[in-house]
Order: sequence, then structure tokens, then C-alpha cells
Amino acid sequence: MPVRGYVFDAYGTLFDVHSVVEAGRAITRHPEDLSATWRQKQLEYTWLRSLMGRYEDFWAVTEAALRYAIRRLDLSASEAQLRSLLDAYLALACFPEVRPALERLAGRPRAILSNGSPRMLEAAVASAGLGDLLDHVISVDAVKIFKPAPRVYALGPERLGIPAGDLLFVSSNAWDVAGAKAFGYQTAWCNRLGAPEEELGVRADLVVRTLDALPR
Amino acid sequence: MPVRGYVFDAYGTLFDVHSVVEAGRAITRHPEDLSATWRQKQLEYTWLRSLMGRYEDFWAVTEAALRYAIRRLDLSASEAQLRSLLDAYLALACFPEVRPALERLAGRPRAILSNGSPRMLEAAVASAGLGDLLDHVISVDAVKIFKPAPRVYALGPERLGIPAGDLLFVSSNAWDVAGAKAFGYQTAWCNRLGAPEEELGVRADLVVRTLDALPR
Repeated sequence: MPVRGYVFDAYGTLFDVHSVVEAGRAITRHPEDLSATWRQKQLEYTWLRSLMGRYEDFWAVTEAALRYAIRRLDLSASEAQLRSLLDAYLALACFPEVRPALERLAGRPRAILSNGSPRMLEAAVASAGLGDLLDHVISVDAVKIFKPAPRVYALGPERLGIPAGDLLFVSSNAWDVAGAKAFGYQTAWCNRLGAPEEELGVRADLVVRTLDALPR
Repeated sequence: MPVRGYVFDAYGTLFDVHSVVEAGRAITRHPEDLSATWRQKQLEYTWLRSLMGRYEDFWAVTEAALRYAIRRLDLSASEAQLRSLLDAYLALACFPEVRPALERLAGRPRAILSNGSPRMLEAAVASAGLGDLLDHVISVDAVKIFKPAPRVYALGPERLGIPAGDLLFVSSNAWDVAGAKAFGYQTAWCNRLGAPEEELGVRADLVVRTLDALPR
């Protein structure tokens, strides 16, 4: 099937959240544990709040998850340290191949579709210097529910004016790929870490290790 | 507020899933890791499938999560071993205080409201010998979505014929308590393991360590 446009997940797919781990060193000698607990809880809260019909934006959810992770791991952090950890989300680097990969796909619309709040996405795109390579930056905030709700994936075709079946959705999160595939996108799973496949009854059309392996 | 009936979560609240850990010894020397990964993924799949609008019953989700966990932990299991692990869910013990606690609450309706499929719940109730102490065994299967969707919690008042505000919802899962509280139940969190509170913006009305501390 021909691909007429590209829709990318943001965190973990374009943006490297490793700088969040670095920021964690201020309050723990095991910043990877903090980062892992924080990220897991951040996702859980997006799913739980979406199911409960109690949307709060990703910034609020990310802060709540951080507070939980700090308590869960018996750490302590001042409000200033907490702010500084959160602010790491506003200044993420992108993975090294992202710029050339997006350049290579020029000529067809390239978009972000992310759980991130508009402010978070704007800051991350600017910080990574990707503004000139993206035609649309779409936040779930427009529909007040998180991935993998179908209403979120509907934003891609709506904004790009291209049917989902003609778009390639790209994410490093296998469950996000499953949501997009179930909605009707063509999908590529960017499996950076060699993670095992999920068992959600839908498979990615394509699996790549890095974004420069995406088809033009 | 007076309590006119009791609605209990099943797994972890009434039923001890430790026997699942025991069954895991057949395929790993670290059955706790298998059990933790399996349980985490089981919950994730209930949330993800609910959000995607792709309900499958809890037995299918539990099997999918087990297959994922086995692959994730680099284990291997024959189909017979896999069946035997799953079958542990059909023969769970209840926690030691459950029977006397339910007896103490007699005189007002006592119900289960669980993600479990009707067959799984029937088997667990029979295996733990709780049939005579429960007036209703309610499965989310009636509405084809999992907790914490409001449609699930609505089943309690519907089946018991008592408004949610007059019912005490009891769960060992803090996120389940949050869902029930958001729906309108009075809630008790049975925090058996001293887990930290969740950051979902709703708090249990009551926290107990074991079920015999519930108010009559």
C-alpha cells in the first residue's frame, strides 16, 4: 500500500527521554529505577484516567506519576527538585537518526501525534530543533482522552486530510502501534530496545530498529 | 453514611493469587518475577483493550498476559504447563479472614464485582467455599469492558437495587477504589501489603489492612 503521510509518536520514538534519567541523579543513586517507575506509572495513569472519564493533561499526569514514584521508592525531593525533574520533559534531545530520517521523508506530510500536552510538545520540538521538519504537531488534548482510544488516532486523518489506511503510524510503544493498527493505519513499530511483542491480537506491518529504516 | 450493602473486588481482595506463584515453580526458579510480570501485563491488557474498544474476556486476557510474561522473561513452557498455570486461577484459596469477615457482614447483601469471566468467578467462589456467603457474583463480562470504566461500577447498584452512595466498595487495588469512588460508591481500600497511595485525585473513605476491620 502506498504511504501518503507519516504520523509519529513523540516520547521514546522521536525524543530520547534519557535526560530524565540524568535529572534523577539529583535525588537517587538509582535514577534508572526512578525513571522506570515514573514512566510505568505515567502510562498507567493515562489509561486509568481515560477509562474513568477523568482526563487531566499529560503534564499533570506526569507530575502525579513522579510524586507516586518518589514515594514508592522511598525517596524525597524538594519542590524545586521535583520541578527540575519535570522540566527535563521540556528539554529532550531527539535520537541521533531522527533529523536525517525526517529529512529523507520530505515531500509527504510528517506529523507528531502524542499524549503530550501542547506546551510540552512545543517545547520538546523546539528543544530538539525539529520544527522545520514537522508539518503538524497534534496533541491528544484536543479530544481529552489518551492513547490508545480510537478518538485519538482519528486526529491524524482529520488533521492531515488523508485516510488512516494511507498513513504510516510509527511508534516505539508496541501497544500504541496496536491501537493505531486497530484504528486502521499502516504501522511501523520502532523497536529500539529489542522488546518482546505484545499479545494484543494486532501486529505491526513493519518492525524497524531505528527510524532511518522507514520506507519512503 | 449508612452502608446498605457490600461490593467486593475478587482477585487480591478475597482470593489469594499466591497459588499462581506456586504453579510458576514448574517453569522458573523465580516464580515471583513471573507472577509479577504476568499480573502487571494482565492489568495493562484489560486497560488497553478497554480503551481500544476490543474487549476479550478475562480468561483470554490472562492467557495472553501469561504468554507475554513467559517470552519477556526468556522462559519456556509447554502447552500443558501453560494450561496448568492458567488453571491455578480456577482453584484459588481465599485469604484466611475472608470467611469470618463475610459472616460478620451478614444481613446486608454481599457481592463480588470483578474483571473475572463468569466461569473463572464461579470456579474461584466454589474452590474457596464462599458460595453461601455471597448474594451476587457480578462479572464485567455483562458490559464487555473492564474496570475502571464507569459502566462496570454501574453494575453494582443495578444488580443490588441500592444506590452506589449506600454501598461500600472494597478492593485491594487502589486504582479500583479510585474508579469506584469516582463513580459514587463509599469505598474501603484493603491495603494488605502497605502499598503507597495512588495519585489519581480520589481517596478511599477508609483504609484497612484486612477485611475483618470493615465496619458493619
